[in-house]
Amino acid sequence: MNARLDATRVASILARVAQARPRVHCLTNTVAQNVTANMLLAFGAIPSMAVHPDEVADVAAAAGAILINLGTISPEGERAIPRLLELARAQGKPLVLDPVFVELSPLRMRLAEDILRLPGIVVRGNGGEMQALAPLLAATPGATRITTGAVDRIEAPSGLFEIAHGHPLMTKVTGLGCASSALVAACCAVEPDPGLAAGAALTAFGIAGEIAAERSAGPGSFAMHLIDALASLDEATLLTRMG
Amino acid sequence: MNARLDATRVASILARVAQARPRVHCLTNTVAQNVTANMLLAFGAIPSMAVHPDEVADVAAAAGAILINLGTISPEGERAIPRLLELARAQGKPLVLDPVFVELSPLRMRLAEDILRLPGIVVRGNGGEMQALAPLLAATPGATRITTGAVDRIEAPSGLFEIAHGHPLMTKVTGLGCASSALVAACCAVEPDPGLAAGAALTAFGIAGEIAAERSAGPGSFAMHLIDALASLDEATLLTRMG
Amino acid sequence: MNARLDATRVASILARVAQARPRVHCLTNTVAQNVTANMLLAFGAIPSMAVHPDEVADVAAAAGAILINLGTISPEGERAIPRLLELARAQGKPLVLDPVFVELSPLRMRLAEDILRLPGIVVRGNGGEMQALAPLLAATPGATRITTGAVDRIEAPSGLFEIAHGHPLMTKVTGLGCASSALVAACCAVEPDPGLAAGAALTAFGIAGEIAAERSAGPGSFAMHLIDALASLDEATLLTRMG
Repeated sequence: MNARLDATRVASILARVAQARPRVHCLTNTVAQNVTANMLLAFGAIPSMAVHPDEVADVAAAAGAILINLGTISPEGERAIPRLLELARAQGKPLVLDPVFVELSPLRMRLAEDILRLPGIVVRGNGGEMQALAPLLAATPGATRITTGAVDRIEAPSGLFEIAHGHPLMTKVTGLGCASSALVAACCAVEPDPGLAAGAALTAFGIAGEIAAERSAGPGSFAMHLIDALASLDEATLLTRMG
Repeated sequence: MNARLDATRVASILARVAQARPRVHCLTNTVAQNVTANMLLAFGAIPSMAVHPDEVADVAAAAGAILINLGTISPEGERAIPRLLELARAQGKPLVLDPVFVELSPLRMRLAEDILRLPGIVVRGNGGEMQALAPLLAATPGATRITTGAVDRIEAPSGLFEIAHGHPLMTKVTGLGCASSALVAACCAVEPDPGLAAGAALTAFGIAGEIAAERSAGPGSFAMHLIDALASLDEATLLTRMG
Repeated sequence: MNARLDATRVASILARVAQARPRVHCLTNTVAQNVTANMLLAFGAIPSMAVHPDEVADVAAAAGAILINLGTISPEGERAIPRLLELARAQGKPLVLDPVFVELSPLRMRLAEDILRLPGIVVRGNGGEMQALAPLLAATPGATRITTGAVDRIEAPSGLFEIAHGHPLMTKVTGLGCASSALVAACCAVEPDPGLAAGAALTAFGIAGEIAAERSAGPGSFAMHLIDALASLDEATLLTRMG
């Protein structure tokens, strides 16, 4: 099923990120900002995180992709969202939505409804979040839906991809799912097929997680090893790990 | 004095947290959010950190306990506080106040005054913060007062507890005191006696700190080891360390 | 050129920080808050990070120095800036500006223009940021301009200092430049010559970075080792590393 997503293809997309160094503008929650920025840097991309409605479009204008993560959304972040949507629409810029805890908040559900109207939207959430969004997503043709878990499932216009990498410790560290959404955005900045882009990002993230788990003494040391592993991931490692 | 807080009792409260996996809704400062969330996850609890006044009550509604930490309070966070107080009052949900730097800010003192009106409130601060609040606390019957330091002192309706665990490095890492307040909240979600709940949380936190200090090369590596130690703390370790 | 900035001079300024334990009030971006606070603590200083316009001047009033960092500036942070400028002006308190991504945001450029009117202002940015500010800085007599990079260049009223310490990994971890600005502020709290203060801070920071690079397996573990190295930096190490 993943014939089109072998180690060579993943390595090629990662190499394009490392060469192009795309900036990913992240309107993201304050809990995950730091680990998200460090993960993007380790991946070869550049983070920017402006949130002020009066500057967010200026700062995001030259970014290669945009991430909107609804965790700890603030009133100012809420006002920044339409600016980013307008920019993404006008420039055809890739945009990834991470609907953190959307199942708990009617406010986030309303914001997600607006965001999902963007053509070509990519959404990454966990099982509960994606289930809560299912009725909206059913009415969103052309969206790429990514449900992460023990096996990540990517439903893209170009087909279905499943990624079976990663480690349970990844659910014990805050912000890692959020950071993986930023990696998906970074790959979307260099690869026009969002299914392949998401597949490459989540394969790299999952394999870095496997390596980190072998080196960690628990959830405290895990994120550090994950970032180190991501920064040194090469095609040989991908080949070995992807079998 | 701590006859009722031996290793078996502490282990029993920790086991209830690990089994019930209570969600702790944290309205907390942006400096400490990440380490607080990771500490709660290592403890077996689930963090949520919404702050927007239009959603904070929705997100906190099904949480097992609430933490209000006044560090980096924002105008929106200020407006979120009454929503959380109303929720805690209506549901009888445990609420912990962490009055960061209250001695420096008349705004925080006013907010603390409102929060302390909540029946059954639990307050954890350092010596300076608790001293600044002393006049207010004197007029707050039924409150549980926790002053942390070289020896943590817990004055609860059920009695006095003193915890002599921990390490000086814990004062050299930002957000650890804030995170300990979140652990107190997690224990309050499963243990109705706030004195015992706070005692169990601070014993676990202090012992994890002792273990981390033995493994750390300085304050940079300390938090990581603390989280690793907290995630693997078991009754045998508690027994050994509590003598 | 740096005859006045030998290891003994640097050690003397660091010792004054460790003894006076100045509080540095940081109005800084939410991405860098945690690493900035931990770096200040490792340096022997105390961080405070209030941002609410109704309390920021109260909290900063007794601080030894102020940092204003424009990253992730919020509407409330924008309103806090004039309160901090008024305080710095009234008390003659040192103030450091970190103009993150000022080249991307007309809003930040306007804010920087206001801040640069403060007599004795110290500015630290990377090459792109300092170049964008060059026209404003040309009209700012008495300012200290710090351009960090492979070689840090400090142009102070008392002369020119160049610091050739550090490691490329320092650009791969988010918030380290921001944290270095906070260290400059901490030194300005104890040393009246901002050129010497900045030189001492950036020498310590750069040498800690060199030590960290020798101990790190990548950007994930780098910040931890940098903070450990900063916390244990002594005159003997400075002497060896400064040749």
